[in-house]
This record gives sequence, structure tokens and C-alpha cells, in this order.
Amino acid sequence: MKRDQNIKNDLIIRTLMGEAVERTPVWMMRQAGRYLPEYIALRNKYSFFERCQNPELACEITLQPVDIVGVDAAILFSDILVVPQAMGLEVQLIEKQGPLLPDPIKTAKDLERVRVADVDETLSYVFDAIKLIKQELNGRVPLIGFAGAPWTLLCYMVQGKGSKTFDEAKAFCYQQPEVAHQLLQMITDTTIAYLKGQVAAGADTLQIFDSWGGLLSKQDFETYSLYYIRQIVAALKDEVPTIVFAKGAWGSLKEMADTGAHGLGIDWCIEPHMARQFAGADITLQGNFDPAKLLSPIPVIEKEVTAMLKAFGPGRHIANLGHGILPNVPVDHAKAFVDTVKNFRHA
Amino acid sequence: MKRDQNIKNDLIIRTLMGEAVERTPVWMMRQAGRYLPEYIALRNKYSFFERCQNPELACEITLQPVDIVGVDAAILFSDILVVPQAMGLEVQLIEKQGPLLPDPIKTAKDLERVRVADVDETLSYVFDAIKLIKQELNGRVPLIGFAGAPWTLLCYMVQGKGSKTFDEAKAFCYQQPEVAHQLLQMITDTTIAYLKGQVAAGADTLQIFDSWGGLLSKQDFETYSLYYIRQIVAALKDEVPTIVFAKGAWGSLKEMADTGAHGLGIDWCIEPHMARQFAGADITLQGNFDPAKLLSPIPVIEKEVTAMLKAFGPGRHIANLGHGILPNVPVDHAKAFVDTVKNFRHA
Repeated sequence: MKRDQNIKNDLIIRTLMGEAVERTPVWMMRQAGRYLPEYIALRNKYSFFERCQNPELACEITLQPVDIVGVDAAILFSDILVVPQAMGLEVQLIEKQGPLLPDPIKTAKDLERVRVADVDETLSYVFDAIKLIKQELNGRVPLIGFAGAPWTLLCYMVQGKGSKTFDEAKAFCYQQPEVAHQLLQMITDTTIAYLKGQVAAGADTLQIFDSWGGLLSKQDFETYSLYYIRQIVAALKDEVPTIVFAKGAWGSLKEMADTGAHGLGIDWCIEPHMARQFAGADITLQGNFDPAKLLSPIPVIEKEVTAMLKAFGPGRHIANLGHGILPNVPVDHAKAFVDTVKNFRHA
Repeated sequence: MKRDQNIKNDLIIRTLMGEAVERTPVWMMRQAGRYLPEYIALRNKYSFFERCQNPELACEITLQPVDIVGVDAAILFSDILVVPQAMGLEVQLIEKQGPLLPDPIKTAKDLERVRVADVDETLSYVFDAIKLIKQELNGRVPLIGFAGAPWTLLCYMVQGKGSKTFDEAKAFCYQQPEVAHQLLQMITDTTIAYLKGQVAAGADTLQIFDSWGGLLSKQDFETYSLYYIRQIVAALKDEVPTIVFAKGAWGSLKEMADTGAHGLGIDWCIEPHMARQFAGADITLQGNFDPAKLLSPIPVIEKEVTAMLKAFGPGRHIANLGHGILPNVPVDHAKAFVDTVKNFRHA
């Protein structure tokens, strides 16, 4: 297991490894995002892919929440859809409208348009950004690398855009399971190489985001998602601690824990004691504050964050939201979330 | 308990009452909908509210799936948003775009624009439709009446349109809880009167749809949803059997069963044996086929429906989808779903 000995605040790494910690660590999904005026200033000047592909910009954005909000980890500023892009699909990220893949995968023939990416050729800008971020972080906190889970990437690659139900992606799997599995394996192979590249560049831990895992029945989650997540975790778990976040897939927490991942993300729709019961004692849980609750008055946030920390209990917990922070959250509310965690001590 | 002795196929009523049945009954959420060419023909001629408010049209649409697909119950053709409309809010239902409430509730002052509806004045067209449907059904199958749960109606009344997360509705609750509770109580009082009117007009059973209950934490679901559902069930459960369907709110199945409801709807993201474990033995479960699975080839549908029926076991189960049928499902696939249930016998 690789471990950067120069990190001063390594609470998140120690928590993932099940080691003793003085307090619960905290970060927020989408912490480098639109609720920060400093991020908006850069967004107004540069397109999404400029911000992603320019290492200096990606570094600056990645560090903003560390400097401004005081989180215990930085997470690489990027997007899960850089992988489909590297595989050969056109991806547009239009501000406020979400992703658009104008020429999605619909048939076996469409697979000819995608390939397992040569990540050093197509995604080297990410590795350059990671190297620069690690240098600029200078050991303050760990850097989290990430990728989308193959199922979630398939959703976008087939549906072509966001959706509440991703029916077209599901129909693709149900009608052409062999083609779906071919595509999922290509995404998996690309993702493993991509995450290995992130670790080689300096990522201290990795999170796999399966944002749409919760749309599948338990059996379909096993078939179309977990089978591939398992390959990714197996390839990476001895290099750095890995976190799997399959939003809504509470019914498979045990099976996700069995992959050997070090941490599991959970959302606010499952109570901490139920998540612990399902996942077992030997894994770190990450979550699970309702992002919309950060719109509450600050005293309510403080009270509810404290209740969450007590519900998880000491150790084996990384405080986080149950999904990405909302753009309309005031910065001082985000700070109240982080500070409440940092000031709390279990009795 | 009211019971129409003239119903020939009363499988659904008997299943809800926990009585012996020869086979599992079946219906489909949104069974009177866009997958039927006969429905599309009427949709092309009449606006949504024309179809809703004209008893002859509502009756014709309600009966279509009974005649064409052979389901074991009719469900009133209407929309949950007729209640906010009756309470004084403007509601537009634009084809393919979903609902729009151009002047939503944002503050205490906005409550002055809504009232507990006089249902006999504002919703008598629904009661007229029910009377006509009961006459035309002539005892073939029972008629299901329905309403939206107060939380789901608040979502639309505050957000003003559909949303993946209903953040504005949640922020309204978290920032102005007293105003939210006032509004929820007004919706509840209207809904109780509305459902009592449906029963008086002839509805044989009732379903309460909490489509967005699964967006809330367990504690918030209790505070903003179940507290009001409980009042509705208490007011109706001795008149006709009641079904509560709070999509995604698996963590509160036990508490929903404790309301005294006769049936609980569940979606495909929870396994039948887990739902039974949470809900207890003394309640009927309804569901839980993935609507997107109806896009599979027919032999796959037959195989998976059979697996679902075996997983639920005999008795105390009404076969249904886990959410509304999708518009692009071929009619013969819907028929395959219904016929597989009707032809199956537990060993």
C-alpha cells in the first residue's frame, strides 16, 4: 500500500485504514463547485473543459475548498465524463444544462466508435493536474482521485444526456445484454488504467462514483454494476484506499463491502445504524448529510450534523454529504457543516 | 367496511383484506396511459384537463386497460395535481413536459392564495366520473380511487415543476417549518374530504401516492410526510382498503404498516423478502417489477415476472410495477406482464 508520509493531516487515510483518529474527518462531494464565488469567477472566464484540461486551473479549483472551507481532503477537479470522451465519444458539458453526448451508443455497430483508451495519450492532462496539485498541497491534506463507475458511465454513453430513470440505458442492457457487457468491460479496462495513472501521479485515495446504481434492482446492480466495480477495486485496493459510492444501492452494501473497498459512501435516505448493519463492522462509512439541509439556518445545521456524528459513532466514519453540495448553499453554511464536524469530539 | 357485493373479480379487495385468493391479482400504475394507442387517440383530440374533467372521457380512458390488457382493477383516470388546483393554485399540465405551477408557494403570505377546498364544489367532476365508471364497469373489477400524499403535493406546490431533488421544496420546509406544516395540514384536510367523496361516489379501494417520499431522510419523512399520511389512512381505513405507496421510502415500511393501511406499494430497488421483513406479515405488498424491464423481449419478461411472483410467495401480494408504465412499452409486453401473473399458480 502506497502512503505519502509527508501528509500532515492524514485523518481521512487513517480512517479509511481503520486506524485510530483524534476526530472524524470531513470533506464534501462537489466541494470545488458552484457555491464558491471564487469558482464562479473562473467558470465565467473558462469553459468546463478548459478548467479541466489546464493543470493550473484544475489545481487552483481543487485547492479552493481546502483554503476557503477547511476540508480534510482535496478532490481532483474533473468530471466522470472525461472517460467516455477519452474512449472516443463526443461529450459536451453545457453550463446549467448538464452533459450532452450527441452521438450515443445504441447498437453493436456503435461500439466500433469507441475503444479502450490509451490513458497516457488521452488523459495525461489529469495526471499533470494531479502532480501540480500534490506539489501545491505540499502535504496539507490528502488528494482524492476519482472515476465514474462503469454502469453510470454507460448510462450517459447510451442515454446521451441526464435522465431521472435512464430508461434507454436500461432498455439497452435488457435488449442487448452482450453488447452492454462488451461496453461495460471496455469502460472498466479504461477506468482501471486511468485510476492507476492517477495513483502514479500522486492520488492518495480513490473514489468510484456510481451515481445511478440506485436505479437498478439488486440483481441488475450485481450484473451491470458491481461485477465491474469489483474488478476496479481489486486492481486498485492494494495501491491506495478506495471508496465506493453507489448512491441509493443500500441493498448491496454488504456485497460492496465484500469487494475489499476501504470505504462506502451512503446517502441520507439510510440511517447510519442500518448502513453499519448491512455493511459490517470492518469498513469505513462516508456520508450522509442531506445536501438540501445545508439550506437550513446555521443552528439547525449544527444540531443535525452533531446528531449525524453521534449516530455514526467514533471511528470508521468520514463526514460528508449524501450527494454533491448544491450551488445555492451559502459558503458560511458549508463552513458551519465542516466546522461542526471538526469541533466535535465523541464522549 | 364498505364492500360492493356485485364485483365478480374481487381478487384485489380480498388480497388487501388478507383473505384467501385463487391467484395473485395484477394491475399496473399508469395503466390508463400513453403506451395505449387508444389513449393516444383521445390525447390527440382533448387536453389533459378536458380528459380529466369530462366524466365520459375519464370513464372511457379508465376502462381501456381493463378491456385491452385485462388487469384485475380499474384506476380512476385523473392526476394528483387536481388537489392543488382545487385549493386555488394554477396548474398547467403540458404534454411531454410535465406539470407547471406558474405561481408556486414560497412564503407565509402565499398561503393566503390557497384554501382547504370545498371538494363538492371544485372536484365534483371526479365524483361524477367515478359514478359513471362504476356503472360501466358493471362489477367486472374493483375501481381504485387515489390522491397524492401531502408531501408530494407540497413538492409541486412549492417547486412549481418537476425536479430530480425538489431542493426548493425541501429548503421551504427546512427554512419555514411552521408555514410548511400549515400547508401540509391544508392539503391533508382537502385530501381526506376528496377521498371520502371518492368512496361515497363508488371507489372500492384507495391508493395514496407519495412519489417523492424517498427524497427524505427517515426522520424528515416522519415529520413532513408520514404524519399526514397517517391522518389520511386513519380517516379512510374503516371505509375501504387503503394502499400507501411512498416510492423509495423503504426505511419506513414498518411505520407505514403501523398506520393501519391494508397495502404498501414497493419499488424494484427492494427485494420482496426484505420488504416483507420490514413491513411485517400482516399487510399486503404491491409491486415491484421494474417498469424499464417491460422493454425486454417477452420471454425475459415472462421469466422475470415468474421469479418475482415466487419471491413474494402466495397471498398478501398484488402484482404491479414499481412505478408507472413507460410510454414506449409495446402493448403486447404489457399484456405479457399481466398474462404471466394471471396464468401463474403457486406450487
